[in-house]
Amino acid sequence: MAIIECVPNISEGRRADVVARIVDRVKAVNGVRVLDHSSDASHNRSVLTLAGDAAALKQGVLALFEAALPEIDLRQHSGEHPRLGAVDVVPFVPIEGVTMDECIALAKDTAAEVARRFDLPVYLYEDASTNPARKNLEDIRRGEFEGLAAKMASAGWAPDYGPSTPNPSAGASVIGARMPLIAYNINLATDRLEVAKKIAAAVRHSSGGFRFVKAMGVKLEDRGIVQVSMNLTNYEKTPMFRVFEAVRSEAARYGVSILESEIVGLVPAAALAATAEYFLQLAEFRTSQILENKLRS
Amino acid sequence: MAIIECVPNISEGRRADVVARIVDRVKAVNGVRVLDHSSDASHNRSVLTLAGDAAALKQGVLALFEAALPEIDLRQHSGEHPRLGAVDVVPFVPIEGVTMDECIALAKDTAAEVARRFDLPVYLYEDASTNPARKNLEDIRRGEFEGLAAKMASAGWAPDYGPSTPNPSAGASVIGARMPLIAYNINLATDRLEVAKKIAAAVRHSSGGFRFVKAMGVKLEDRGIVQVSMNLTNYEKTPMFRVFEAVRSEAARYGVSILESEIVGLVPAAALAATAEYFLQLAEFRTSQILENKLRS
Repeated sequence: MAIIECVPNISEGRRADVVARIVDRVKAVNGVRVLDHSSDASHNRSVLTLAGDAAALKQGVLALFEAALPEIDLRQHSGEHPRLGAVDVVPFVPIEGVTMDECIALAKDTAAEVARRFDLPVYLYEDASTNPARKNLEDIRRGEFEGLAAKMASAGWAPDYGPSTPNPSAGASVIGARMPLIAYNINLATDRLEVAKKIAAAVRHSSGGFRFVKAMGVKLEDRGIVQVSMNLTNYEKTPMFRVFEAVRSEAARYGVSILESEIVGLVPAAALAATAEYFLQLAEFRTSQILENKLRS
Repeated sequence: MAIIECVPNISEGRRADVVARIVDRVKAVNGVRVLDHSSDASHNRSVLTLAGDAAALKQGVLALFEAALPEIDLRQHSGEHPRLGAVDVVPFVPIEGVTMDECIALAKDTAAEVARRFDLPVYLYEDASTNPARKNLEDIRRGEFEGLAAKMASAGWAPDYGPSTPNPSAGASVIGARMPLIAYNINLATDRLEVAKKIAAAVRHSSGGFRFVKAMGVKLEDRGIVQVSMNLTNYEKTPMFRVFEAVRSEAARYGVSILESEIVGLVPAAALAATAEYFLQLAEFRTSQILENKLRS
């Protein structure tokens, strides 16, 4: 049985009744499970976590747009978080029994239907992107809702689906497919912020490090230590153990040890299994050997 | 939803039609899944792997006895593997959403019903045992079917349930609860068998090592290397990473490195997660952070 995760971000985080109505409409869709939803008032944004198969999630996302678009008018919206649309971004994430290619197909199919049904421009992003310049969400969202009309009129910014001008109240949406993210922090046994910053620079992609690592050095004031705070955006291609070992090795040159590490939120079982496989030097291990996988197969 | 694994061993491994009939009877029980069954002709023994909740597995095991007892006569049985009964041993193993105490209760409940319904002596073992001298299967099974009448007549060997003499054709059965076993081997980059034997002696319980490790040193002739071959009988109390590190450390004193390790058969996800937790120095990790657990909760 295929399990896909879907994490829609909507531009409403203050009116709890509006968010509740939207969540209820998604919950009512057969085969869609709403695992979680949380709202942030200062961001004025809510994040839903849905799970289901491709057919159910497509219907769930369409129900979400149908419920959200009449309620959210970006001309009246403000918040700290950058946003382009009333339904701002909708990633599909392959979890189990499903390939990335199937999630890409689902993203395109859903994007086409959203554009058609709601007269809304839609951009594809991440693994679903067909344009390297429009792969990163940050690049697509730059200029935000307020700059969208000008951006769409400029070369290279015709949307993948839908009209060539913004929807007046809902802007544009970004739909795509990506790997699960792991929010992974490594705490160092030192209060020297410059060490955390140097290590972050060494391991992150933007400054020459690993392809699928975003990282920064931060101070944990209350504990008197520093942290390399990271997002691992593809744990298959840039695995946790490799990042951990690189941080350990970089820290050692400053005479600093790793105090501990932490996973914030969720982590795929396969990322932990790959870590055990590495450190135990497991030969010929298959995830079908995991008892729970056998029980559920 | 509770998932319990049950691994009945029956004393028939040659007559495929008999085994098939017994398996079919178990499969017909509502709520019982037969994940696997395998027969060994030289052992003259078959092992079934069942999964389900407590109520279903109790009915499944009763169906197994009902099907197996008329077909298997231990007076006509021979094979390499030691055995005491037609249905020799039935362990219940907690997997998910269920405690060891619940599996112990299930073992006792099933044992009482088996004894009553089939007029069969039943011994409790491992975590279900109420008698330290009868905790290990090897101790209960010593003397085998042929020595059972004399053994049952001796002090301390009245069964936990059922008659005080063997069932003429079916002997006695051993029913209990235990943790999942992990068959875990570590291959050494050497052909010196004495090194593997010394390391096995250092880590196994019987010669002073870890409480839940059985180990021996063996030669892998075809590869020209040696192996520390182990059973980990409680991965929570004697975790994989601790055994791996101990073997690595013991090997180093002989100038030997670990070449690789291997898991034979199944491993609980929690054993891999604990390994990742150890090597990544994860602080405050909870298994509820594993994405798949969240998706299935």
